[in-house]
Amino acid sequence: VVVQLIPVEGIPEVRPGDDPTRILLNALAASAIALQNGDVVIVTQKVVSKAEGRLVPELPVGKAGWVTQETRRIVARRGDTVIAETAHGLVCANAGVDASNVREGFLTLLPKDPDESAERIRAEVQRQLGVAVGVVITDTFGRAWRRGLVNVAIGCAGLPALVDLRGTRDAQGRVLEATVVALADEIAAASGLVMGKADGVPMAIVRGLRMGGPPTPAGAMVRPAGEDLFRTGEGGEP
Amino acid sequence: VVVQLIPVEGIPEVRPGDDPTRILLNALAASAIALQNGDVVIVTQKVVSKAEGRLVPELPVGKAGWVTQETRRIVARRGDTVIAETAHGLVCANAGVDASNVREGFLTLLPKDPDESAERIRAEVQRQLGVAVGVVITDTFGRAWRRGLVNVAIGCAGLPALVDLRGTRDAQGRVLEATVVALADEIAAASGLVMGKADGVPMAIVRGLRMGGPPTPAGAMVRPAGEDLFRTGEGGEP
Repeated sequence: VVVQLIPVEGIPEVRPGDDPTRILLNALAASAIALQNGDVVIVTQKVVSKAEGRLVPELPVGKAGWVTQETRRIVARRGDTVIAETAHGLVCANAGVDASNVREGFLTLLPKDPDESAERIRAEVQRQLGVAVGVVITDTFGRAWRRGLVNVAIGCAGLPALVDLRGTRDAQGRVLEATVVALADEIAAASGLVMGKADGVPMAIVRGLRMGGPPTPAGAMVRPAGEDLFRTGEGGEP
Repeated sequence: VVVQLIPVEGIPEVRPGDDPTRILLNALAASAIALQNGDVVIVTQKVVSKAEGRLVPELPVGKAGWVTQETRRIVARRGDTVIAETAHGLVCANAGVDASNVREGFLTLLPKDPDESAERIRAEVQRQLGVAVGVVITDTFGRAWRRGLVNVAIGCAGLPALVDLRGTRDAQGRVLEATVVALADEIAAASGLVMGKADGVPMAIVRGLRMGGPPTPAGAMVRPAGEDLFRTGEGGEP
């Protein structure tokens, strides 16, 4: 089955108090795209943060001040680069504080509870259209040992963020032992193919996915400290 | 523009000496899929490794023996889990030595030069069909701070593995400062949506991408030691 990645064009600049679901549905109507059961709606963190009032003035504390506020644990630091763990348990540059696609003099912070933000959009689409969709909220992260950024899922509703294949068999009939697939991160990364950073396309639809299993939030993808083989750096428990 | 992810069904079990391009073109012909200029062909490591004779008997050295052979540096270890850097500079579980989708008693090692493997397929498609495609060879990696696996690109030809947006402007007109997108990894992760581990679909096509810039190999995504903020563990230079 072919999977389609569909950019949602014509999203206006989002302001505090805006309703992301209304923005989505207006843009879909203008593009004559009808949501279908099983579609997954991708929304960038930037849209959600702006709508939820997580747009903050850079001054007087400066970007570094906001990064400190958003940081639960510093994982690594070199020069101006801070890799930090946020209150959500996300490990990313500058604790998610970011200036791209934000107007001069302002910054966005990550949504307080991106899984809840995703669930609100999912429930509202269900209520208004009667269509069962999944929702993934993305941000753009670096990786420890690989250059370049990819989108990851920081919020997820209506689909399993992780798909546990342990105990199922591969094409050879061998039992798969260590195979938990990060479905929500696959979807997030795929959405990057139609929502380039410079293009101002902050929403997309993924159509045609098979999604088995009960929904789980993006928070399920956060690796707990006890499983972290790379737990180093300042602060926090060892 | 809509991007399509198209699974290539009906790939037979691959044996040492098989030609991956012939397997691809046979399967496409059987599915009545015609390659187009700008398509990206995704091939899993498993197909390439088997074709290139990187299928090895587990005994007498055992999986641990093969992992040691394939390891340049141990990055972390806990119990049976070894996160190792390979000769390619890839950081992954068991240095890429893997038993899934391999017949009992055998293991696959990563291709010796996956960028060259990708380039061979690309050049052969160009020669036989006169069609200019990109090729990405994928493997399934874990992540330091996130649960679940995603496909990454270990080989790449005919497209830029990294797209450098630094100096371009975002939708607000702000100059993007730190935005290098890992296009080949986005493509690899997206392919996971149509090539489930348990499904025996080891090839896929991504259609409709815009790919600016000169081709660069997947090797360009390997973070050099000097940029590595998380360089710990046994062996190797500090």
